[in-house]
Amino acid sequence: MRATRRSNANRTTPSWKTPRETGSGTRDTGYVVTDVLILVGSESDKPRIEPAFEILSKAGVSYEFHASSAHRQPDQTGELVKTARKKGFKIVIAGAGLSAALPGFAASLTDLPVIGVPFAVGPLNGLDALLATVQVPPGVPVATVGIDNAKNAAHLAIRILKGPS
Amino acid sequence: MRATRRSNANRTTPSWKTPRETGSGTRDTGYVVTDVLILVGSESDKPRIEPAFEILSKAGVSYEFHASSAHRQPDQTGELVKTARKKGFKIVIAGAGLSAALPGFAASLTDLPVIGVPFAVGPLNGLDALLATVQVPPGVPVATVGIDNAKNAAHLAIRILKGPS
Amino acid sequence: MRATRRSNANRTTPSWKTPRETGSGTRDTGYVVTDVLILVGSESDKPRIEPAFEILSKAGVSYEFHASSAHRQPDQTGELVKTARKKGFKIVIAGAGLSAALPGFAASLTDLPVIGVPFAVGPLNGLDALLATVQVPPGVPVATVGIDNAKNAAHLAIRILKGPS
Amino acid sequence: MRATRRSNANRTTPSWKTPRETGSGTRDTGYVVTDVLILVGSESDKPRIEPAFEILSKAGVSYEFHASSAHRQPDQTGELVKTARKKGFKIVIAGAGLSAALPGFAASLTDLPVIGVPFAVGPLNGLDALLATVQVPPGVPVATVGIDNAKNAAHLAIRILKGPS
Amino acid sequence: MRATRRSNANRTTPSWKTPRETGSGTRDTGYVVTDVLILVGSESDKPRIEPAFEILSKAGVSYEFHASSAHRQPDQTGELVKTARKKGFKIVIAGAGLSAALPGFAASLTDLPVIGVPFAVGPLNGLDALLATVQVPPGVPVATVGIDNAKNAAHLAIRILKGPS
Amino acid sequence: MRATRRSNANRTTPSWKTPRETGSGTRDTGYVVTDVLILVGSESDKPRIEPAFEILSKAGVSYEFHASSAHRQPDQTGELVKTARKKGFKIVIAGAGLSAALPGFAASLTDLPVIGVPFAVGPLNGLDALLATVQVPPGVPVATVGIDNAKNAAHLAIRILKGPS
Amino acid sequence: MRATRRSNANRTTPSWKTPRETGSGTRDTGYVVTDVLILVGSESDKPRIEPAFEILSKAGVSYEFHASSAHRQPDQTGELVKTARKKGFKIVIAGAGLSAALPGFAASLTDLPVIGVPFAVGPLNGLDALLATVQVPPGVPVATVGIDNAKNAAHLAIRILKGPS
Amino acid sequence: MRATRRSNANRTTPSWKTPRETGSGTRDTGYVVTDVLILVGSESDKPRIEPAFEILSKAGVSYEFHASSAHRQPDQTGELVKTARKKGFKIVIAGAGLSAALPGFAASLTDLPVIGVPFAVGPLNGLDALLATVQVPPGVPVATVGIDNAKNAAHLAIRILKGPS
Repeated sequence: MRATRRSNANRTTPSWKTPRETGSGTRDTGYVVTDVLILVGSESDKPRIEPAFEILSKAGVSYEFHASSAHRQPDQTGELVKTARKKGFKIVIAGAGLSAALPGFAASLTDLPVIGVPFAVGPLNGLDALLATVQVPPGVPVATVGIDNAKNAAHLAIRILKGPS
Repeated sequence: MRATRRSNANRTTPSWKTPRETGSGTRDTGYVVTDVLILVGSESDKPRIEPAFEILSKAGVSYEFHASSAHRQPDQTGELVKTARKKGFKIVIAGAGLSAALPGFAASLTDLPVIGVPFAVGPLNGLDALLATVQVPPGVPVATVGIDNAKNAAHLAIRILKGPS
Repeated sequence: MRATRRSNANRTTPSWKTPRETGSGTRDTGYVVTDVLILVGSESDKPRIEPAFEILSKAGVSYEFHASSAHRQPDQTGELVKTARKKGFKIVIAGAGLSAALPGFAASLTDLPVIGVPFAVGPLNGLDALLATVQVPPGVPVATVGIDNAKNAAHLAIRILKGPS
Repeated sequence: MRATRRSNANRTTPSWKTPRETGSGTRDTGYVVTDVLILVGSESDKPRIEPAFEILSKAGVSYEFHASSAHRQPDQTGELVKTARKKGFKIVIAGAGLSAALPGFAASLTDLPVIGVPFAVGPLNGLDALLATVQVPPGVPVATVGIDNAKNAAHLAIRILKGPS
Repeated sequence: MRATRRSNANRTTPSWKTPRETGSGTRDTGYVVTDVLILVGSESDKPRIEPAFEILSKAGVSYEFHASSAHRQPDQTGELVKTARKKGFKIVIAGAGLSAALPGFAASLTDLPVIGVPFAVGPLNGLDALLATVQVPPGVPVATVGIDNAKNAAHLAIRILKGPS
Repeated sequence: MRATRRSNANRTTPSWKTPRETGSGTRDTGYVVTDVLILVGSESDKPRIEPAFEILSKAGVSYEFHASSAHRQPDQTGELVKTARKKGFKIVIAGAGLSAALPGFAASLTDLPVIGVPFAVGPLNGLDALLATVQVPPGVPVATVGIDNAKNAAHLAIRILKGPS
Repeated sequence: MRATRRSNANRTTPSWKTPRETGSGTRDTGYVVTDVLILVGSESDKPRIEPAFEILSKAGVSYEFHASSAHRQPDQTGELVKTARKKGFKIVIAGAGLSAALPGFAASLTDLPVIGVPFAVGPLNGLDALLATVQVPPGVPVATVGIDNAKNAAHLAIRILKGPS
Repeated sequence: MRATRRSNANRTTPSWKTPRETGSGTRDTGYVVTDVLILVGSESDKPRIEPAFEILSKAGVSYEFHASSAHRQPDQTGELVKTARKKGFKIVIAGAGLSAALPGFAASLTDLPVIGVPFAVGPLNGLDALLATVQVPPGVPVATVGIDNAKNAAHLAIRILKGPS
């Protein structure tokens, strides 16, 4: 995690108008890459993923956040994921409720590790999202964490980024 | 359903090598469009969707079948769906097991009616696929039928195609 | 959807006293048919189906609404469904909670496409209604949408009504 | 249960062609009524209800069996139920799998006690049928017994028929 | 239901101190039997069964209510059930939450029809009570109604009491 | 566990005819008490509890086995449980499937520790039995082990019998 | 339970800083052992286990309480459990929510009886904790009580401590 | 993954006698570290994890396999996990059925990324293992893959090991 800081200059603002937010535990002094691309399926899901922000920031892990649905903005969301590796992202965190296609969608469009967070949205309290997130077919792995457990998504990302000693 | 027959000549063979199969209850005498695009996520799912073939054929409804995964062949599958309307398809039937992203994936890439068939694949007996298929977010509707109930996908397609008297 | 407007003159007021409501995105200037017959099992379910009204209206799709139970008013409800096609309805949307018989009941009495909306009524939060709506036997298809997802019932109806290009 | 024996002469053969079967633990010596009308949704469900036959017969309770679906033969099934009381039936036993509408359908068309038997048909092993049978709305009671527990349907019928001392 | 009214004189006050309550839709003018023995497992369950009281009373069906647990007062509860038939009760309604042993317990100690009402008590919202109530073994039938659906327990009792025409 | 061996001479054969079986890891040389009373609801459940026999015997723990249903033989089963303490039993192990009333029934009639084993009988694979066994109300504790995990019932009994050092 | 009182002098204060609390139904007059070691996975779980405190105290059973997670403080928690027997504890009560590893963790590190209490924490309302607590493998028994039923953990402990007459 | 090959010479054989197996897609020519430590809770679980072996080997990822239970061999299993990082392992894959404590146990004893595979062992078909694996508390993340989806554990490990370009 030596290069976790990012340069806003180095990241072109996407032309589409999506909610976007970035954060970092270190100051923005010109480093070029952001560590984690965080996606949620809906702007209303943002409070559910926010607990990850603080944990990542404290660990000096930079992130970029977008609310972009796999179902309703498939092209935009796909573009975000497909270009993630070449932009320098090392991990994708994808959170979604209900049928929760976003994590598997992301895992199908990048070979970065994708961490999925099922959200307890709707009457089934996230059981639907959990099953949709984790039961992806062989070849498209999603590292699923607990329902509404955005903290563990951050903790898992930190473990992955830390790498071997 | 006056134009349910299709012309093979009129349908270009796609360049990719996917399992494909077509059928019709009427003879191929040069009509140009196929009614229903049928997709399943895996070749191993084919026996689960086949009960739909006979019902469609008996009703004179033509169809074209592909096994193409939303997760493992997203571009190819996306292309099949995106071009469905302009190729003349009127309905998409999408069947999948486990996290069952295919129906919602299809519904996000076309404005044709999409019928989803959850398959009882794996240890949860299709409960996962049912929830993933039906609990799609507002704006991306999937007309979900019962677990492994490919017959009802066909019957529903026939009702839709029949239209008003 | 060229003929989505309806004429009140053309629709006889039913003799039974049920809650009924109609809407349209276009002005009532004498067109004869209403597109969608919307039924719910209980007057108390009305707020759960109302999100569909606005979406249909915005799309210029006309509808007629009744609260009429399959269980408690089987004859009246049956009559509404059996006469739907000849009155010019093109689609039936049926929403119900608990054992949710209404959608399957409707599908058994008309050959119009029937869209089922399971409601999250009662202690099981709609899981009962989802299973009762979607697990209908072969031959009686119900196009099931997500629990309390009346919006998708409307979106699906619009897709069906739009038809081929 | 003094009048449990039935006279075939007294029961007109219905004009429709459904599987029908009758039984009695006592000889047919001219009594006029049959105690229990037993309905299942599909001929394939017959083995699941048969354990009730022997128990009823041993207790001297007569029954008449039909396989007639609420969904696929609503008119015929409705006629069977609506005329049950005036034909002298005292109880209806209705068994069905999947969305299991038959018991509630029966309870909506007669004021006789209706006993519902959910069948473990399909991938959800009868959980769907149990919920659909038992979660009927107020006013349309179904006396539900356990999944595939036709024996208890018979035992319950015997208790009801026995009446007060 | 010709003899649904009851005489308080004819019912000895039990020596134990349990919550007890009686009601009737008709005046107490000396008739001797009460129709329905209503039991719940805990005093705190009383509001869940009360909707049955009004329905029974309106139909002229008399009842006697006790809160008496199968688990915590097995002897007292057993005595109530065992003596029910000879006291003239015609039906037992038993409601309970959680592991809901009361209905099956009652059905094991009397041959009167026992109607079970699962209560949505505790974190599983009555799914536990439903399964415990309905999945009793062959020979001990419980006529189970929906979760917290005390109304249907009353309606079912009325159907049973009405008997053949 | 100093006195785990038992004397057959000291245990009167009960007059009822139930399947009964005893075992011990040590020779029967005249000791008077048996450690564990093992009950299952049905003779057909015996193979599900037998894995406990060997583990108990190996640990020198004596047991006495009866198949006796809480629902179908409540008096006999109640007698077995009520007299357990005075006969010298130290623990009751009760296994049952479906609505699994036996463990809670036992816990309501003795103040010995009762270990419950839910059996995977029937279409719900023991989920019903697990909930019925464990969700007993406060005051009537059942020490529940896993579904069909008779071994752990034995291991738990051994831990309890071992007592403090 | 003759020696249920404990001497604080006899219990060394652990060096780690965990929430700890003790109680007893009798006065602390120098007796040496505490009966029950009570552990929960998180300080926030304390209100869920507290109903056990009063019941134990009323029965004269002493206890010592720690909030110590199997997952986040495995060494400390392990030490508490491993030394429990030699400190004189006779029973361990372990309560946890979500994946609820604590009870099984305790049962793997001591041969004292371990009572597990699943807590209804999080969106699945304790179903996850129940399954994680009770479905431990053979050889590591956890005496599981109902979800959030701390009272029964206390009642069960009292039954075990009471021992044979 | 440049250094994925391992030297047997460099890995000391553990003194305990556990099933152990290693593999590599490349020849053992003296490289020093093994990439992935694979643990399952029971030798009988080995066939469920084996699909990961081939995928890892094909990708040139080395692994070392042990069957060692968190519950039954906590010390040995703990030692394997605690020493994993210093032995050079980069990832732990832990598979278990039933209450599936192994993955969370591992995540609590190392800060390497831990991938959990729930196994469909026992009557609940892996739903118990899924919940126990994924619903770990914040701070102890387990990257959970689908039930019995060992392949995705391997694929996820490969994505993590690949790291940024």
